[in-house]
Amino acid sequence: MSENTNLETMRHSLSHIMAAAVKNLYSGTTTTVKFGVGPAVENGFYYDIDFGETKVTEDDLKKIEKEMHKIVNRAEKFVCREASREEALEWAKANGQDYKAELIAEIPEGEKITFYAMGGFEDLCRGPHVEDTSKVGAFKLMRISGAYWKGDEKREQMSRIYGAAFETQEELDAYLARLEEAKKRDHRKLGKELDLFCFSDLVGQGLPLFSPRGTVLRDKLADYSLSLRGREGFEKVWTPHITKTDLYKASGHYAKFGDELFMVHSQVNGEQFALKPMNCPHHAQIFASRPRTYRDMPVRYMEATTDYRDEKTGELGGLSRVRCLTQDDSHVFCRNEQIKGEVERLVGIVRELYSLVGMSKLRARLSYRNDEDKYLGDKELWKMAQEQIKMAAIDNNLEYFEAEGEAAFYGPKIDFMAEDAMGREHQLATIQLDFVQPERFGLTYVNEKGEKERPVMIHHATLGSIERFMSVFIEHTAGWFPFWCAPEQIRILTINDAVEDYVAKIEAILKDITLETPLRHNDIRYRVDRRNESLGKKIREATKMKIPCILIVGPKDVEAETVSVRLHESEDTVKLADLAEYIKNLK
Amino acid sequence: MSENTNLETMRHSLSHIMAAAVKNLYSGTTTTVKFGVGPAVENGFYYDIDFGETKVTEDDLKKIEKEMHKIVNRAEKFVCREASREEALEWAKANGQDYKAELIAEIPEGEKITFYAMGGFEDLCRGPHVEDTSKVGAFKLMRISGAYWKGDEKREQMSRIYGAAFETQEELDAYLARLEEAKKRDHRKLGKELDLFCFSDLVGQGLPLFSPRGTVLRDKLADYSLSLRGREGFEKVWTPHITKTDLYKASGHYAKFGDELFMVHSQVNGEQFALKPMNCPHHAQIFASRPRTYRDMPVRYMEATTDYRDEKTGELGGLSRVRCLTQDDSHVFCRNEQIKGEVERLVGIVRELYSLVGMSKLRARLSYRNDEDKYLGDKELWKMAQEQIKMAAIDNNLEYFEAEGEAAFYGPKIDFMAEDAMGREHQLATIQLDFVQPERFGLTYVNEKGEKERPVMIHHATLGSIERFMSVFIEHTAGWFPFWCAPEQIRILTINDAVEDYVAKIEAILKDITLETPLRHNDIRYRVDRRNESLGKKIREATKMKIPCILIVGPKDVEAETVSVRLHESEDTVKLADLAEYIKNLK
Repeated sequence: MSENTNLETMRHSLSHIMAAAVKNLYSGTTTTVKFGVGPAVENGFYYDIDFGETKVTEDDLKKIEKEMHKIVNRAEKFVCREASREEALEWAKANGQDYKAELIAEIPEGEKITFYAMGGFEDLCRGPHVEDTSKVGAFKLMRISGAYWKGDEKREQMSRIYGAAFETQEELDAYLARLEEAKKRDHRKLGKELDLFCFSDLVGQGLPLFSPRGTVLRDKLADYSLSLRGREGFEKVWTPHITKTDLYKASGHYAKFGDELFMVHSQVNGEQFALKPMNCPHHAQIFASRPRTYRDMPVRYMEATTDYRDEKTGELGGLSRVRCLTQDDSHVFCRNEQIKGEVERLVGIVRELYSLVGMSKLRARLSYRNDEDKYLGDKELWKMAQEQIKMAAIDNNLEYFEAEGEAAFYGPKIDFMAEDAMGREHQLATIQLDFVQPERFGLTYVNEKGEKERPVMIHHATLGSIERFMSVFIEHTAGWFPFWCAPEQIRILTINDAVEDYVAKIEAILKDITLETPLRHNDIRYRVDRRNESLGKKIREATKMKIPCILIVGPKDVEAETVSVRLHESEDTVKLADLAEYIKNLK
Repeated sequence: MSENTNLETMRHSLSHIMAAAVKNLYSGTTTTVKFGVGPAVENGFYYDIDFGETKVTEDDLKKIEKEMHKIVNRAEKFVCREASREEALEWAKANGQDYKAELIAEIPEGEKITFYAMGGFEDLCRGPHVEDTSKVGAFKLMRISGAYWKGDEKREQMSRIYGAAFETQEELDAYLARLEEAKKRDHRKLGKELDLFCFSDLVGQGLPLFSPRGTVLRDKLADYSLSLRGREGFEKVWTPHITKTDLYKASGHYAKFGDELFMVHSQVNGEQFALKPMNCPHHAQIFASRPRTYRDMPVRYMEATTDYRDEKTGELGGLSRVRCLTQDDSHVFCRNEQIKGEVERLVGIVRELYSLVGMSKLRARLSYRNDEDKYLGDKELWKMAQEQIKMAAIDNNLEYFEAEGEAAFYGPKIDFMAEDAMGREHQLATIQLDFVQPERFGLTYVNEKGEKERPVMIHHATLGSIERFMSVFIEHTAGWFPFWCAPEQIRILTINDAVEDYVAKIEAILKDITLETPLRHNDIRYRVDRRNESLGKKIREATKMKIPCILIVGPKDVEAETVSVRLHESEDTVKLADLAEYIKNLK
């Protein structure tokens, strides 16, 4: 909901104007159009309408819009009147407005019941409204879709007509352009066009299959996350994807989320397992597998492993909501006094990664406990930990806000919101303290005095789920991936066969290049398009695949010992001798 | 079973001698020891014995062995007599030999029934035997374990006493030494000692958790396999671990192996999935996701992904039989005439990998179809494919043998047997042609004439399952991993604090080294042991962890600008200036 109350009022008035237009067009002596609710929403308004037997489609929106403009042009005054419940119900009955009757019946005793009229159209409404129908800014009807009355799939199916609305035509145009851009960037569309991933009906919804190009991107992102954490002392471990449910009974997850697990059943001997939805209990088992001392602390494990969560797959064909989540998961086992240092280390990793991918605008939510009983673990430990987290945020100049009562039951946390190129915020990285699992698994280390102490566990994911991160990253970059992680970084286009020897020289140069930043040991991925096709066609195809660097090689280049380079937004002619250096500097 | 029939006879006679010794020791007036079967087996013999109420343990084996030697020393003649079924059953009844009575009853009508006697001991037996009890070579009783009569867990539990036996004492000693060595090399023992992997009762049997050191080894082996295949044009893909069973219904696996799948059940909406036991159908879906032409062929996919198989876990705590099998799986989709070339490519990969890990002695079994009806796909295609496989074996000087009727129902195959340092053969790598899945999934590519053609699929795993390969590799190397894949390659041991600056110089050198063979971009993994402990203790610990290269740094080294190096089987003094080159050449 917009915070601009004037704009909100305009949008709400537009929903009345749309209803009036619909009534003018579709209500006659034999048919009554019935109205549900028509609120202002983010970027516009909608109205839920029951058209009865009449079929209204996307094609009719222009007509309705036209009728709305007539009402706007007449500058009809909005007039309010108060009514008793009886009068109101009488009105609903007289006008055949069954849904409104239901709404009237639900208005609490003692609350005022008001109607707003403009021109010949009157509607049950709390208001407020603009002065007259000319004061509603710029609008456009966007789409019509099905919606159940009261969101209840057992009730009547209505039609929801949705309109965009802003104070000025410029703002509306900007919004429409943003929408257009978002459509172009839709990762599902780009996923197909760039051959990154696919789905199979035989495999199932929410279970993407990554083709070679998508797998390169996945691997580069995962490797970069692993390399950052590796540099900071994290060691890779490997754990299987299934476990006896005993593990989650011991960790405490079973009691809370047991009925959300994907259960795995052995047909051979009837044993029960579950697919892991997270990795912390597995990592805790590795920590527990050997005696640990204060010298070993902190112990830092990392993995990039696939978890399975039995989510309702709302969105088809995309990576935003999947059932297989490959997490770049980390767990630190540390001493109480090491919390701040470890949190700072993780904050540093988060900043470095999001800054690299061009989402350096981060907001951090520090989630603390409140006085409720649901929080487990020692209160003093909570207090100390929350202070350490806050100090870590302050000392690292993090843009943060605090949220009391938002902590997990097992410990306080930091969630990061990253802003993409479209100005949308995504919650991706997280740092979560956990006082409960070390207790439940009886994890200990021996301190300097030879006594057993309980470590704190810190959960961390940098990218979060690689699949979901990719959905954001593909849209953020519009598929123009940074050079270091682009599936095909370079395509060499030949103008004719005469350049073959020269292409061999270029290939030798490319094979010899290993990028060392941001990811170490990153060999160049290139292809040669030698097909007997026009250069124009070759360029169009390479551009459509969003290859960040296209090298065009013709007889003139051979003669001049140069290469013609096409980048996304610029062109260059590079001497063969400078090519390696040029490529190493591509971003 | 041994092919040396004389040795086999000796071993079988020893089982009689052991039975006689047992009877002498344990059968009295009140107790009757009952005998089951007593065959010669590989490396020795056993006898299944029912001791009744008497408890016989490992501790009693010495006593039995002593009694056996008495019989051996008496050089008692083996004497054969024939008996009718009635006489034989009479004998069994008179001697209380219920199991023998059962065996007698099962001897087919018309077959001779014979008894062998030596000294006072007579036994139902087909023979043959050695002339007298002195001619049995060298032997040693090894162990006693439980065994069900006829291997049927519903029948009586007997005691199986197992003995090793060879013609000479030298051979026996060599065998015992090999056993001792195998025990030392047991990957379950080394897995613990070297901190490679662990198990958790909460996670379950057959589900190993890899700690950081084991994960390095896993990753290096998997990366090497990926790098070999990547060099040969394989592209990595990624597929989820679960799928709707529809996929296996379409592939045909469900009808054959449906009841061996781990079933996955959604508690949220009741949907049924299965954990994938193989990856071919998933990869076929990626192939099918786009139109393909002859220009694209062969299409080569690879993955290192974990499959789940619902195997009875016979062996506890090891990697030989696990439920999670991470396969270095590859699938080629090629044209009929490309089969030989692709098989040769894969043979090359197998040879390169096994040669690198010191198991270059490979035998290949070429499995063909016979005339049975169970084989699917066109007969002519089979014939042509089998010829191409054989030519690939011959042209590549592969040691091979042919096995008709051993092919999979979907196509002919090559299985590789690799010999380890202990002389044991392991079946690990495989190359399998498949004419069926392309058909069932309707896979096609467009040929030069614009017509649709059906590709052939080739399944290949180089390491096989990484877990099982590791079980072999750990025992093969006895935990002394080759330098390139050792979890901790180098440990620097300081003699005192005065060498800190010098250690910093060494560290700078190590950080700068990247091995490029056999695996590219392989950074050095090292630790520094700065603890205030004796050098002796530090060396012992590093040796126990089988660190391939130990660098000892004392004041004298600082002065001389040298480093003292300890390798597994040699020592060196290396100039600091030569250290990088020295390390790059370690094997």
